[in-house]
Amino acid sequence: MTGDKPREECGILAVWSPQPTDVAGLLHLGLFALQHRGQEAAGMCVSDGHQVVVEKDLGLVSQVFDEARLDQLRLPDARLGIGHTRYSTTGSNLRFNAQPLTVRSSKGILAIAHNGNFVNAKEIRQSLLEGGAVFQTTNDTEVMINLIARYSRLSLVEATAQAMRELEGGFSVVLMDRHTVLALRDSHGVRPLVIGRRPEGGWVFASEPPALTLMGAELVRDVHPGELVWVESGQLHSLQVLEPHPTPCAFEWIYFARADSVLEGIGTHESRVRMGEVLAREAPIQADVVVPVPDSGIGAAIGFSRASGLPFDYGLYKNPYAGRTFIQPTQALRDLKVKLKLAATPAVKGKRVVLVDDSIVRGTTSGRIVQLLRDAGATEVHVRISAPPIKYPCYYGIDTAARKELIASTHSLEEIRRFIGADTLAFLSEAGVRAAIGGPVCLACFNGQYPAGYPHEEPQKEALEQAG
Amino acid sequence: MTGDKPREECGILAVWSPQPTDVAGLLHLGLFALQHRGQEAAGMCVSDGHQVVVEKDLGLVSQVFDEARLDQLRLPDARLGIGHTRYSTTGSNLRFNAQPLTVRSSKGILAIAHNGNFVNAKEIRQSLLEGGAVFQTTNDTEVMINLIARYSRLSLVEATAQAMRELEGGFSVVLMDRHTVLALRDSHGVRPLVIGRRPEGGWVFASEPPALTLMGAELVRDVHPGELVWVESGQLHSLQVLEPHPTPCAFEWIYFARADSVLEGIGTHESRVRMGEVLAREAPIQADVVVPVPDSGIGAAIGFSRASGLPFDYGLYKNPYAGRTFIQPTQALRDLKVKLKLAATPAVKGKRVVLVDDSIVRGTTSGRIVQLLRDAGATEVHVRISAPPIKYPCYYGIDTAARKELIASTHSLEEIRRFIGADTLAFLSEAGVRAAIGGPVCLACFNGQYPAGYPHEEPQKEALEQAG
Amino acid sequence: MTGDKPREECGILAVWSPQPTDVAGLLHLGLFALQHRGQEAAGMCVSDGHQVVVEKDLGLVSQVFDEARLDQLRLPDARLGIGHTRYSTTGSNLRFNAQPLTVRSSKGILAIAHNGNFVNAKEIRQSLLEGGAVFQTTNDTEVMINLIARYSRLSLVEATAQAMRELEGGFSVVLMDRHTVLALRDSHGVRPLVIGRRPEGGWVFASEPPALTLMGAELVRDVHPGELVWVESGQLHSLQVLEPHPTPCAFEWIYFARADSVLEGIGTHESRVRMGEVLAREAPIQADVVVPVPDSGIGAAIGFSRASGLPFDYGLYKNPYAGRTFIQPTQALRDLKVKLKLAATPAVKGKRVVLVDDSIVRGTTSGRIVQLLRDAGATEVHVRISAPPIKYPCYYGIDTAARKELIASTHSLEEIRRFIGADTLAFLSEAGVRAAIGGPVCLACFNGQYPAGYPHEEPQKEALEQAG
Amino acid sequence: MTGDKPREECGILAVWSPQPTDVAGLLHLGLFALQHRGQEAAGMCVSDGHQVVVEKDLGLVSQVFDEARLDQLRLPDARLGIGHTRYSTTGSNLRFNAQPLTVRSSKGILAIAHNGNFVNAKEIRQSLLEGGAVFQTTNDTEVMINLIARYSRLSLVEATAQAMRELEGGFSVVLMDRHTVLALRDSHGVRPLVIGRRPEGGWVFASEPPALTLMGAELVRDVHPGELVWVESGQLHSLQVLEPHPTPCAFEWIYFARADSVLEGIGTHESRVRMGEVLAREAPIQADVVVPVPDSGIGAAIGFSRASGLPFDYGLYKNPYAGRTFIQPTQALRDLKVKLKLAATPAVKGKRVVLVDDSIVRGTTSGRIVQLLRDAGATEVHVRISAPPIKYPCYYGIDTAARKELIASTHSLEEIRRFIGADTLAFLSEAGVRAAIGGPVCLACFNGQYPAGYPHEEPQKEALEQAG
Repeated sequence: MTGDKPREECGILAVWSPQPTDVAGLLHLGLFALQHRGQEAAGMCVSDGHQVVVEKDLGLVSQVFDEARLDQLRLPDARLGIGHTRYSTTGSNLRFNAQPLTVRSSKGILAIAHNGNFVNAKEIRQSLLEGGAVFQTTNDTEVMINLIARYSRLSLVEATAQAMRELEGGFSVVLMDRHTVLALRDSHGVRPLVIGRRPEGGWVFASEPPALTLMGAELVRDVHPGELVWVESGQLHSLQVLEPHPTPCAFEWIYFARADSVLEGIGTHESRVRMGEVLAREAPIQADVVVPVPDSGIGAAIGFSRASGLPFDYGLYKNPYAGRTFIQPTQALRDLKVKLKLAATPAVKGKRVVLVDDSIVRGTTSGRIVQLLRDAGATEVHVRISAPPIKYPCYYGIDTAARKELIASTHSLEEIRRFIGADTLAFLSEAGVRAAIGGPVCLACFNGQYPAGYPHEEPQKEALEQAG
Repeated sequence: MTGDKPREECGILAVWSPQPTDVAGLLHLGLFALQHRGQEAAGMCVSDGHQVVVEKDLGLVSQVFDEARLDQLRLPDARLGIGHTRYSTTGSNLRFNAQPLTVRSSKGILAIAHNGNFVNAKEIRQSLLEGGAVFQTTNDTEVMINLIARYSRLSLVEATAQAMRELEGGFSVVLMDRHTVLALRDSHGVRPLVIGRRPEGGWVFASEPPALTLMGAELVRDVHPGELVWVESGQLHSLQVLEPHPTPCAFEWIYFARADSVLEGIGTHESRVRMGEVLAREAPIQADVVVPVPDSGIGAAIGFSRASGLPFDYGLYKNPYAGRTFIQPTQALRDLKVKLKLAATPAVKGKRVVLVDDSIVRGTTSGRIVQLLRDAGATEVHVRISAPPIKYPCYYGIDTAARKELIASTHSLEEIRRFIGADTLAFLSEAGVRAAIGGPVCLACFNGQYPAGYPHEEPQKEALEQAG
Repeated sequence: MTGDKPREECGILAVWSPQPTDVAGLLHLGLFALQHRGQEAAGMCVSDGHQVVVEKDLGLVSQVFDEARLDQLRLPDARLGIGHTRYSTTGSNLRFNAQPLTVRSSKGILAIAHNGNFVNAKEIRQSLLEGGAVFQTTNDTEVMINLIARYSRLSLVEATAQAMRELEGGFSVVLMDRHTVLALRDSHGVRPLVIGRRPEGGWVFASEPPALTLMGAELVRDVHPGELVWVESGQLHSLQVLEPHPTPCAFEWIYFARADSVLEGIGTHESRVRMGEVLAREAPIQADVVVPVPDSGIGAAIGFSRASGLPFDYGLYKNPYAGRTFIQPTQALRDLKVKLKLAATPAVKGKRVVLVDDSIVRGTTSGRIVQLLRDAGATEVHVRISAPPIKYPCYYGIDTAARKELIASTHSLEEIRRFIGADTLAFLSEAGVRAAIGGPVCLACFNGQYPAGYPHEEPQKEALEQAG
Repeated sequence: MTGDKPREECGILAVWSPQPTDVAGLLHLGLFALQHRGQEAAGMCVSDGHQVVVEKDLGLVSQVFDEARLDQLRLPDARLGIGHTRYSTTGSNLRFNAQPLTVRSSKGILAIAHNGNFVNAKEIRQSLLEGGAVFQTTNDTEVMINLIARYSRLSLVEATAQAMRELEGGFSVVLMDRHTVLALRDSHGVRPLVIGRRPEGGWVFASEPPALTLMGAELVRDVHPGELVWVESGQLHSLQVLEPHPTPCAFEWIYFARADSVLEGIGTHESRVRMGEVLAREAPIQADVVVPVPDSGIGAAIGFSRASGLPFDYGLYKNPYAGRTFIQPTQALRDLKVKLKLAATPAVKGKRVVLVDDSIVRGTTSGRIVQLLRDAGATEVHVRISAPPIKYPCYYGIDTAARKELIASTHSLEEIRRFIGADTLAFLSEAGVRAAIGGPVCLACFNGQYPAGYPHEEPQKEALEQAG
């Protein structure tokens, strides 16, 4: 639900073309396909080999890129560029945190965009400060670009590889100078990044395959964990900088990635259907109808329906205008958020309902949905969650609620069931998630085991406003 | 799809409270629930028995009503008000066409909001002009209010009843002065209008029941065709002005009304499921999976799946950001509208797909969706439409395309099938629609039989810019 | 000073061209030249003989007319149009009060714009209401257009002349249908209106001559009091509807009209210089320097300097950015309005200053300016006002403060002097004003003698929000 | 004239208070008083000793600082801050160039704002790049802050003094960390900077004294050329880092600084009056009236009138709305810029006019004004310019036109006279400027003698878009 889901922090994108093309137009399409990965800011950077133009701002892709901005980016001989969609906390300044970040260095102009987090950013930043560096933001991105710039005698590829060796955490990055595009993933491949090819020989890198499709490119493969790839003379070059230890984030399959994405060869919608099937076997129930929380529970509800034999139905109507800002009418009516978004249809009247969703964060939203169904005449409401309980923070680019707000980190299953008012409640097991996805995954937010390390002290979101 | 669906022209709303209450807040909620009936403009008018305040503008409810506007409307002793959401063609002036329309007359201040059309508006307007009247818009609404004002010696109720007797067409209207709220439907009840009651004794009138729910009211009944109702001294009064000949618009059940609406006692989602079931029996097909065009085909796809036994699946991903304005990247990429909104999921790969939607207007969108599925690996695509072919214009408030653009009015079934590239194509029969809804309905856009008359000459959308 | 000057209520404009021309562009220039007569709203209406397009909104001319709006108005065969700048009280609705007002009547589309007020508007409105008319605004303009429309069997010229005979007060009006432009003044000629001719044979009507100049027209003459003029077949036609009793508003020469205007053959700047000269003779003083309050006191200060022989100097700097909205920093700093706008220059240090301005309304601003001069080292401050004290409200289109706020209507000269902290204070006499202007003028705001009548009861500014 | 005047590049401001105060409110007032020094962007930075908040954007002070932005800056315990108004070329990105620039360094958070230019910025930037630094803008400001940060073992005061020793050119700078405010001028004192004291013991630094006045501070003195001052424990400390060679910019007195400013003890308005007096003696003429180009020529016109005995009059009306953006009506009417801003009053009719202005850059504007006067009936027009001809570019923070556009660098006096259509033309001599100001000044734009050096190669305005 709005405000009660873990949030992805970014989508990234890069394109390289053998001949002049509408790079800004391509990036614009790709960013639109990655809008779900970040709604707070969007930006892109384009080069023709000489000029480098960047445009970025707070807002949705469709808000940031009007005709005037796109015209600024439309260099007649444009051949390469990178793009970014960003989730971030609010604050007018934070506009300056929008990406791509563009700097001039001894290697010329560099632009960078990233998804994820470095767990040792603080230590590296401190060492750079002592060397005389200055930072204008609190972005990890600025740390990485300063690290690369420090190796002023190495080539851009070598300096980037060296930075990869020093940085720890879960991150995917795209990077460009005036001629070359680079893309890389951390050694665990926590955040996704795929490679695509366009018919005329161009290369595209994106967080998810649907961006490739919209840009007219075919999926080639995922960037490997620990790999650095770049385009030189039209060829894709690869350097396996670090030994791969693949543990991609399970939540990409559970919720984040689009339903038409395929990551590491595994379709997200298909794995969600399988999660629902496993869940139906792990936690069966006698009921009349399986109802998804739209849209996040649809895949798992279909799976639950298939495995249980119970009919799937559309028991919750989602108001398509609910995403917009809406002035809450009065103090007394504040509690309407869920009702503005969802309404139970008469299809649930007199029925025993299995309600399927993908997660419970604070529990308040789930409780309100259960109540909606009861008000509409559901006789029983059985809640089935297609993932384990979220108990731990993510240090690799996901904004879960603070740990003390995570209901599962402080309450038992029975307490949660009572809190949300369900007749029964069940979560999918960790084994169930693994089985449904079918590959190695990071489950740190469920079990606290962090494959790519964690910060020495838990990082607090620092604003520029705070002390240095 | 965007730009390829018939469009409802308005949602209307009224509230009357026995004691001072947050009328603006209630109307705001109700309008949000009626947003799907009109996205171009929104407005409301509130009174405390002395002052009458109106705020209206082009835009979505959430855009028009910011804090400042709501504050203007928040009279401390507010007791009644009306609201409106409007679909209209673009044009900066047309802001002046937003409703409610508020006028001063010999009966004091009157405000009016309406949904639908008068087929004899032109003749009545001409007669009023000759009597010295002036018109500031080309709205039917202004014709009605002038007609009522002309009866300066009758009471508001009597004058309104007299106007009902003179006006022909399909329309629902809400009307207020500083003390009273009135609501009425044409004698065929073409456009919906329901009556709700709030726990404290207040009355609410709305185009659809979900507006009542969000405003904390319970559905009492539909306003009857040809009935005029009003609230006086806290009591609901009724006058059956015209003999009822009920033929409500079938498209409300097929597509327009929300999936959680119940009109004339018949649930829309349930009737859509039944349309899918009847369609599966009328036009069965051997296939692997039933895929809805989201969101309009979901109900019928569930019905088709149930009646056919074929599995329902989520084969088309709908980008939730697609409704927003989006600068088309270049001339060459213009054709991307459908791809920006929909993407086929890998669930259709290697499958024979039954694609379920509720209508085909021009055919171009349907053709592109069929192609999306084939590109994603569907081996066969069988299109099933849960309504008959649209062949005729609507004169009662729906903006279908012009007749020559309606593919079904100029092409045979086989021609349409070839145009959209489907393996097979079938539409639900008129009898099937009647059976699925289960009551008398207007099917004029399918069969050209207009129960509430039609204009002597087909009206052209007149802009203020054009000659008087 | 900002917020402490009488305010003109409107500027009006009309153009007629023998061949297609850029009517919108011409009106745009003319409105810019009339911006000082109304800053709250602007609008224009253009016709090519068939279409009539209107664009209007709250804001300055430069804000209302962006490229998009001008494009709407640029009919390829445009030949005539009218325009308006408006001062009005704030309120989001009041957008609907912007002019020109465009209506459809039995005479076809009519557009009207006016400057001034009808003192018997209320009675006429009541009679129209009883005849079945409805009103959408509280503008006098809507009353006039309804009055004209009521004469549905008369020609537009005859109906307008008939309306002139019924309306009382001080007003200038421009009016158009799709072919003709009309212009008229009340029988006292209270508000200005001039006729201009363009080299190619076109006609222009405007509140002040500088609008003609910017539109490339030469001043022909003033419209006579009580005269109705119109363009037919390229000829200017005239009908002296009412016997003229010329008493044009003296404040046009004292303050409102631009310094480069010539009204009734009398230059405003020249008359202001003469007011200063007469004032220097009526109220001489020993001093070192004559300092104008910029910009309103410049003309009179030059005259005072010439007649007195005292040197003119630039003792007050006016911040050119002060007109803009400015967020007052804190409650404690609220009193800064004058300081944000004006600052004393070192030129006044150690000097005995004659401070020249054109009016004192509430007195607070004058008091603060006197203090500014003393703070900067002026040893004496002698205030000279180039008009008599304002004691009475204007019923002919000027928004003076309410009578109880007019310091001169409740305080003696000596009390005002003490209130503003001046060493001496003198106002120009009524005789002095007459002498400096040199023609018959309305001095009602100084002496309470209303040549064009006054309302039976003092009209209160009615908002739409109030009862009908 | 609009678009035909040399433009100041910046205004700077700093405040330090012994106890918590409304620093943002004070800076807001001060920036408003410095608006004339830069209209493209505004910003401020505030600290309470712990937090540092910055808000900046493109636009006027009144546009950038709305309630929301001021609230962001209103730390309850705020004690110090700096502010900036900026002139810059357009371009959406350039928002990122707005000042103050805020960075984190080994010395903690630093904020900096500057006025002027470093002539050796390019060399210093190159050396920093080679040391691994990255730059996000092309601002000189970022060079200076990186230079300071490089001295990571020196204190902030020592590091700043060291940077002053390395930087060449004409510049004034304010700088802050979380506790201290610093202010400095280059060794020639080219750009102004003054010190003020508030009654409660606070310190203020500003480009011009009127900012002090509005902030409630008294002028103490100018910062000396080559001096670094800072506030520590409430005391003002001073370090004369470089030997002073005072040559402040003459154009501050001629045109840039406000008419109520006093710089280096010399009032600007008084010196302008003296320039007019000297000019009248250097280039006397028989005429009837002295007319200033408002507002820039007023001071000199008063002086010319006094010395010549010819009457001063207001022969050009300046439209107070002319500063706003205004859509040019059509291609054909493009040439209206001057007419939209200025109009001749009838005061010049039949007169021999002395037209007084402070500069001629391209000559086109002057030519149009001469024509305006002739069109209004002036029989002769004698142009008198209160400064020498501008022939050379400024490298110290003023944006004159490019040298080839400077009419005086390519044309003789007689050619210019003919170009602008004047009967006679005279410029004030260099000696005349020196005499009127009465102290040593930089006259580089008149004589090409650059006291503070010049770039090895003439710097081109680099955009981020261009190569690094």
